[in-house]
Amino acid sequence: MNAKPIVTVLAGDRPVIGLEKLQEHAELRITDIAGLGSALNGADVLYMWDFFAEGLQDVWPNADALKWIHVPAAGVDKLLFPELVESDVVVTNARGIFDRPMAEFVLGGILHFAKGFGLAGERQRRQHWKSWPTTEVAGARVLVAGTGSIGRCTARLLRAVGMDVDGMGRTARAGDRDFGTVHASADFAKVAGGYDYVVLAAPLTTATERMVSRTVLEAMKSSAVLVNVGRGKLVDQDALVQALQARRLGGAVLDVFETEPLPQDHELWQLDNVLVTPHMSGDSQNWLDELAAQFESNFHAWRQGKPLANVVDKRLGFVPSDC
Amino acid sequence: MNAKPIVTVLAGDRPVIGLEKLQEHAELRITDIAGLGSALNGADVLYMWDFFAEGLQDVWPNADALKWIHVPAAGVDKLLFPELVESDVVVTNARGIFDRPMAEFVLGGILHFAKGFGLAGERQRRQHWKSWPTTEVAGARVLVAGTGSIGRCTARLLRAVGMDVDGMGRTARAGDRDFGTVHASADFAKVAGGYDYVVLAAPLTTATERMVSRTVLEAMKSSAVLVNVGRGKLVDQDALVQALQARRLGGAVLDVFETEPLPQDHELWQLDNVLVTPHMSGDSQNWLDELAAQFESNFHAWRQGKPLANVVDKRLGFVPSDC
Repeated sequence: MNAKPIVTVLAGDRPVIGLEKLQEHAELRITDIAGLGSALNGADVLYMWDFFAEGLQDVWPNADALKWIHVPAAGVDKLLFPELVESDVVVTNARGIFDRPMAEFVLGGILHFAKGFGLAGERQRRQHWKSWPTTEVAGARVLVAGTGSIGRCTARLLRAVGMDVDGMGRTARAGDRDFGTVHASADFAKVAGGYDYVVLAAPLTTATERMVSRTVLEAMKSSAVLVNVGRGKLVDQDALVQALQARRLGGAVLDVFETEPLPQDHELWQLDNVLVTPHMSGDSQNWLDELAAQFESNFHAWRQGKPLANVVDKRLGFVPSDC
Repeated sequence: MNAKPIVTVLAGDRPVIGLEKLQEHAELRITDIAGLGSALNGADVLYMWDFFAEGLQDVWPNADALKWIHVPAAGVDKLLFPELVESDVVVTNARGIFDRPMAEFVLGGILHFAKGFGLAGERQRRQHWKSWPTTEVAGARVLVAGTGSIGRCTARLLRAVGMDVDGMGRTARAGDRDFGTVHASADFAKVAGGYDYVVLAAPLTTATERMVSRTVLEAMKSSAVLVNVGRGKLVDQDALVQALQARRLGGAVLDVFETEPLPQDHELWQLDNVLVTPHMSGDSQNWLDELAAQFESNFHAWRQGKPLANVVDKRLGFVPSDC
């Protein structure tokens, strides 16, 4: 009898890091998405290193011994499907790893617009010496939608530089330790007009899909900047494009899109009031090592029968916050 | 006898703000640089609204009654000449107004490189979906040259986001309230290699000119980013261009240049590892109003014989710091 658990590792384009530390404790089956079905037979654990892969649902009947899936990403919206939600299989994610890089990315995106660095680049290419109006972020008002660990870390960083930050979550409340005021997402259109920056750091669920509706966009200040590091589908993307084209919005920093990669002919690439980045706001110099270390730590907890960190509430679609 | 003092206002391209509040207290003579000579005859005060203007030295003999010059700028290097330095005429500047905008500009410039937003713009124009390595600013080491109010405000803001900041001033010291360690500028080449970012916020004086020499540039990390919001002549600009072209430096955020405007055919415009901005890091949404209010306040102090704020030490070339 093999005492080692079977861990199926779904690899992708990116080399898998940290396997050398696991191989003495587990039988590793490294596979691509095409081989996932057979690699799941009898497997105890699925380590979805290629966390954007789709297709698990198709081979789900093969997951005959599966107990735990670890997704080294923050959002698990691509993963969840009814049979998995209904099953006893535990899902964990990489909560925490992306917090600080994403918070810094958001602050950088805000300063990019406050200081007009996009315009700087454009004038630099034309060798044109001419200044433009800038704004200060000190005292500017920010609404951060999403009160999980990414939203909280972002709120703390933005507060540290003197911004006035509120939150938005499932339910309204006051006196939150990171946000002070938290609005209910149902009130988004009602409160949107009060902010200079709106940051999306929420998970994609049926409750948050298109939370930035056409109505919300219309309620925003015409100078306001939208920063989306959550998921593209949190926004009515067509309405956003129209608002940006008509300059009814100050600008947008978009790291996520309805369809990724963003199609080459998409008009968002062309807008001079948009900063497009390829779903990378959570990357940092050490993120792959940190993801590997986080799985290793959770794997040892699992082997010892201890509680797993970052267990996703499969019905909610995210790891519930501790407050 | 006219009880009102004569205030000569050197106007420039930018409309002068705040005169309506002064005119009941002073006889105002608004002039351009061509008329400055005759407008100085008998004038008590020179308000150099056009703070980049040169030519005061040429008409200095006309300043027969001058007691005070106010320059609504931080750097007075363009203004000072031997006859003025030797005279009893008091010079004041706009210390304080630019601190926060410049500190934010520096932070934005640092994040621009940490997150690769220059590359983002380049890939966006090519509609190319491909991520790039980023770094975190948390824990990154910064050296801020200049321990006046701009350098201090910058240090505080960079510390607030978790950066590890040291200062550089005339003399080495420990335990500074904003910097902790302050290195002596004489040791620049010795310490430069320890920093991820080097920020120049020093005044231009004979002691600081070309403080970033070829030797200092060679001592810097090849990944380091130079941010210059002080004066172009703080840097050996030719050596900087060579270091950037050879990728012996990570990049540069340059708001100031040896010659301004930066000549149209200058190679700095072309470098993809440089962010060029047209001497505007201190601008903000309210800066002109704030400059006007600051002069008004100092003017009333002067009329009442009270001490003036922000008196420049004409031999040092800046307002000495209070610590």
